[in-house]
Amino acid sequence: MMVKAKVFIYNKEFDGLPKEGDLIIKEEDLPPLKDGEYLAEAVYLSVDPYMRAYAPSIPLGSVYIGSQIAKILESKNSDYPVGRYVVGYFGWRSHTVHDGRTPEAPANFPAPFLIPDLGDVPLSYFLSILGMPGNTAYFGFLEICQPKKGETVVVSGAAGAVGNIVGQIAKIKGCKVIGIAGSEEKGKWLVDELGFDHFINYKTDDLDETLSQVAPKGVDCYFDNVGGETTATVIQHMNEYGRISLCGSVSSYNKKDRSVRIPLFLLVAKQIKAEGFLFYRWVDRSLEGVQQNLKWLQEGKLKYRETVTEGFGNTFKAFVEMLEGKNVGKAVVKV
Amino acid sequence: MMVKAKVFIYNKEFDGLPKEGDLIIKEEDLPPLKDGEYLAEAVYLSVDPYMRAYAPSIPLGSVYIGSQIAKILESKNSDYPVGRYVVGYFGWRSHTVHDGRTPEAPANFPAPFLIPDLGDVPLSYFLSILGMPGNTAYFGFLEICQPKKGETVVVSGAAGAVGNIVGQIAKIKGCKVIGIAGSEEKGKWLVDELGFDHFINYKTDDLDETLSQVAPKGVDCYFDNVGGETTATVIQHMNEYGRISLCGSVSSYNKKDRSVRIPLFLLVAKQIKAEGFLFYRWVDRSLEGVQQNLKWLQEGKLKYRETVTEGFGNTFKAFVEMLEGKNVGKAVVKV
Repeated sequence: MMVKAKVFIYNKEFDGLPKEGDLIIKEEDLPPLKDGEYLAEAVYLSVDPYMRAYAPSIPLGSVYIGSQIAKILESKNSDYPVGRYVVGYFGWRSHTVHDGRTPEAPANFPAPFLIPDLGDVPLSYFLSILGMPGNTAYFGFLEICQPKKGETVVVSGAAGAVGNIVGQIAKIKGCKVIGIAGSEEKGKWLVDELGFDHFINYKTDDLDETLSQVAPKGVDCYFDNVGGETTATVIQHMNEYGRISLCGSVSSYNKKDRSVRIPLFLLVAKQIKAEGFLFYRWVDRSLEGVQQNLKWLQEGKLKYRETVTEGFGNTFKAFVEMLEGKNVGKAVVKV
Repeated sequence: MMVKAKVFIYNKEFDGLPKEGDLIIKEEDLPPLKDGEYLAEAVYLSVDPYMRAYAPSIPLGSVYIGSQIAKILESKNSDYPVGRYVVGYFGWRSHTVHDGRTPEAPANFPAPFLIPDLGDVPLSYFLSILGMPGNTAYFGFLEICQPKKGETVVVSGAAGAVGNIVGQIAKIKGCKVIGIAGSEEKGKWLVDELGFDHFINYKTDDLDETLSQVAPKGVDCYFDNVGGETTATVIQHMNEYGRISLCGSVSSYNKKDRSVRIPLFLLVAKQIKAEGFLFYRWVDRSLEGVQQNLKWLQEGKLKYRETVTEGFGNTFKAFVEMLEGKNVGKAVVKV
């Protein structure tokens, strides 16, 4: 059968927040399957901050990057049987013909993998708490921050896909957890449902003053999703030998000059470590992260929430709203 | 006997580069020795960048902070015999009565220690290559940067007390070494005498362009003594998993706003680690650093140079000239 795929093409370089017309939807005829290939239909698309960060390296005219959960409709590859679901970095497309190997771009992204049947675990969780954001939180926080019981942990972008998991893992490890986010609704969720100790609304609270109040003993670990002024201010409150896990700089992604004023001398004076990472650093240990997060999920120690947008055509809208911070928890698109 | 000490008093808060009158010389009557105390006379005073960095935390009216080598003139402490030399953080003073314990300020500075007799090793080396700067280079570079053979290492403030040792240790470890400093005289010394592979004059060369030429494979380790624009530019050239050892920010010490614009998102994208440190982190391992540096010195693998200013009264002048980058190698004052 001849299948038509809908794809989002990167049409015009983003200037600031992505605008209508920067991505355009096209139809593409998919070729018939060759041996070793399978055809999959998107069920959930992921929208993540890294997609904006990578924009300058994505060639105009190509399908926009991203991962998805897709159902296998047809297969000439026995590793990918019809009816099963696969997580793949196929880009923003409704249908994909793939050969089961690692996609070319972006470099170092993992090969597609078949989702195991876990009964009542929602399928979309494999894009979030049991997928890249879950492992980003697990490894990026534990490996770089090395949190100790009783320490104070600050998380920015705390209500985002990764941040909320980091805060919950920090609670599991016996830390005091302060979440920074941009709405009272998010704060309520973090404190009342996820058990964060404090919430700071960076839009309405004075971050510096509030940190002095809620972290009187200073900050030991900072998991940074946003960069910018927030990071500069948190550094002022950090203790000697503090650890900063640099996961993202979403506050700067829409800016031409992405650099940030940082009190570098304080990193010296307080012997602070700031380390950037990308989730694929621990890709060989993926299963460890997924299994631990699943265990905590099943034990009720990790809770999770998604902001679901309906319809393939609304992927761009979901992407922009995520960049504006309108999502609570992981932003996904249900096709 | 009644001894009069000359001391430099912190009289007026530094505003930018320290000015005449900010420190004033006073005379002080020293009390007669009690049991456990000894009297020592300064032979060499150290002037170091950290002294400017600490200025905001030094109380006006107190003796200015610093280390010195002093000869013991009189003693009621058998651990400190007359005639021996001691390294102590006594401050800028010509004579000191001390009880042999750790000085109160600045916190965490090591207790005075007796200099062993090493024959032809100059006494002043215990303020430099066999003292704090030597250990700062040894531990701060090796522990934080973890350099591997064949990697490219950039050192800023490369002709300073610490930087030149870092570069030489990097050569010993089989790295390619690029030094950044501010005069052709310094560059000549680094390349012709110390064996650095390249020198970049930050005052006359385009750092960005020159780094592209001399480090075409990118930079793996950066040992930072200066902060500021230099650091922001070097980060642009760093490779994935690059390591930055943040030793100092001398370019910002004389500024009111000591923060620096840094491409923080690049630390994420390239998974770079930036870690600040103060030399006392490894104070328990001091002897290891001193012994290794001494061994390399005796084997001719480490060379050393000092900029010596004569006369206690010229300590302030030596301090300001060091902050202006006029010294080559360690700046010391011979009393």
